[in-house]
Amino acid sequence: MRGKNHNGIKAVVMGGGTGTFMVLSSLKHFVSDITAIVTMADDGGSTGVLRDEYGVLPPGDIRQSLVALSSSSEVMRELFNYRYSTGVFSGHAFGNLFLSALEKITGSFPKAVQTAGEILQITGNVVPVTTDDIRLSVRKENGEVVKGQKYMISSGFKKGENNTFYLEPAAKINPAAEKAILEADMIILGPGNLHSSLVPILLVAGVSEALKRARAKKIYICNMMTQPGQTELYTVADFVDEVEKYGGKDLFDFVVFNNKKPPQEFVEAYARQGEQLVSSDKKDFEGKKYVPVGENLVSSKVIQPKAGDKIPRPLIRHDGNRVARLLMKIYFS
Amino acid sequence: MRGKNHNGIKAVVMGGGTGTFMVLSSLKHFVSDITAIVTMADDGGSTGVLRDEYGVLPPGDIRQSLVALSSSSEVMRELFNYRYSTGVFSGHAFGNLFLSALEKITGSFPKAVQTAGEILQITGNVVPVTTDDIRLSVRKENGEVVKGQKYMISSGFKKGENNTFYLEPAAKINPAAEKAILEADMIILGPGNLHSSLVPILLVAGVSEALKRARAKKIYICNMMTQPGQTELYTVADFVDEVEKYGGKDLFDFVVFNNKKPPQEFVEAYARQGEQLVSSDKKDFEGKKYVPVGENLVSSKVIQPKAGDKIPRPLIRHDGNRVARLLMKIYFS
Repeated sequence: MRGKNHNGIKAVVMGGGTGTFMVLSSLKHFVSDITAIVTMADDGGSTGVLRDEYGVLPPGDIRQSLVALSSSSEVMRELFNYRYSTGVFSGHAFGNLFLSALEKITGSFPKAVQTAGEILQITGNVVPVTTDDIRLSVRKENGEVVKGQKYMISSGFKKGENNTFYLEPAAKINPAAEKAILEADMIILGPGNLHSSLVPILLVAGVSEALKRARAKKIYICNMMTQPGQTELYTVADFVDEVEKYGGKDLFDFVVFNNKKPPQEFVEAYARQGEQLVSSDKKDFEGKKYVPVGENLVSSKVIQPKAGDKIPRPLIRHDGNRVARLLMKIYFS
Repeated sequence: MRGKNHNGIKAVVMGGGTGTFMVLSSLKHFVSDITAIVTMADDGGSTGVLRDEYGVLPPGDIRQSLVALSSSSEVMRELFNYRYSTGVFSGHAFGNLFLSALEKITGSFPKAVQTAGEILQITGNVVPVTTDDIRLSVRKENGEVVKGQKYMISSGFKKGENNTFYLEPAAKINPAAEKAILEADMIILGPGNLHSSLVPILLVAGVSEALKRARAKKIYICNMMTQPGQTELYTVADFVDEVEKYGGKDLFDFVVFNNKKPPQEFVEAYARQGEQLVSSDKKDFEGKKYVPVGENLVSSKVIQPKAGDKIPRPLIRHDGNRVARLLMKIYFS
């Protein structure tokens, strides 16, 4: 054990969205001291409206991490994720309103997150990576500048392009996030949207430096599928290269990825949306300092599409329990 | 003590709005087993929008009672009463959104109220008087029918008119409310808006019957000020007569009212809005079965008007501690 004054493992999980939700929900059964360090670049959907109308910090990713670590009643967790489908609040997740109102009352987003954490009786901590009010921006190879994370999805990035992502204004790391990174035994990044969630974490001044100084085992969990106009044709090694472009060379000790092909029908349903399995050829890893760890991480539960879903295909997800057990195996290796 | 299997006092406080908030907030320091039985006729403001857009039961009065009985942190209580002043949620109290979302998730308003009560760590219980979806209506002496509590305020009632208030559809008492009434040692009605809050409680089928059967000491707390177009020129005895018109003859053992004139400047500020002190001449009580109890109940704290207040005058309020101590004195008399 690398931790001081502590018998368990101290884990830091970095990211946002459903990938981080999966890791937190599963890892909490093995690790009691988890700090979720959450991306703060979201400016779309319910979160975007709240930022624009109320000048608050983005609650959406924080909300998901809080719910993942919650040990409160099912109804409270449902309440936090409850999304109005009609009326004036249509599209808003209740937990987002909760966090934004708390921020207004306490005058501090971290205090709001802490209070919400107490109410949700979370295991561990949820910490915004920065408390600066930032927007993700990109200067594309062709000179075009796109500002706002919500506009990234339609900007059609191609593999090999020299696009430069940056935050506006530049942001400083939240001291609580820095402390957690430096004290951690294990640090996990991802899975998550590469440019919308993970890169904006690494762009925060102080994050890359803290990661370099950290004594923890550092593990990157790669996405299972590519996204059209985002990570098209990316291999596992490409994902890592892009992460290291912003986080620093040789940042990770281990790179975890799925190497099991899901049933053909699902692969085809994804392909119709321009989404492909992320490939991982052994050759790609030659000369890399990290240890590539490919395993079957596909969940056997397939989530069928519902009426009104934006993307009409079944969902293939990581199996959280498999991921968590693999992380533990790596930690104890 | 009249209570069974119980060493303390069992109190029931009936009403809604700020008057009931005052009684609950103060009485909880003397009585640990309080059930607030709350009016369900509100259909204006934030509550009205939620009822209309989401088909939920009215959360506003319930919210106030929950906060009054809450022993959770100041920030949670503030959060529940937090009202958005701009943007898409403008005018909505956060606690109203909270209760309505919980109702949607649990599929049951009483369950939503119970869950909120747990989160707010309330002393006692908050119980909707009915779980039927009702609207307050009135058939005026001139034959005109007005439907909807929010329209009552502008309908210009006059003392002595034979107006008949009713609920549409007719509503049945919530069994939890009936049980609390029958088991209570002390039952308090008011203070509160006579026709908008208190009468709609008494109109619920089963309330009047339960009150008659109850062994409790029954106390009505009269409002301090009249309201123009509502209770203009009403004396204390007139308030009681109107309550008894709907709740039944000789319903109360005691009628509590303020007999202290606030400083002249405040009386004049109220008078400019058509509001008068409720008068209480000894003659009015002749032949009444109830015991009239007049005392100085005026709060020495005067709440100054803020920019944007609907009614631009200082607020004179009941002194909650004086009211609670008087209730205890009556109980032990």
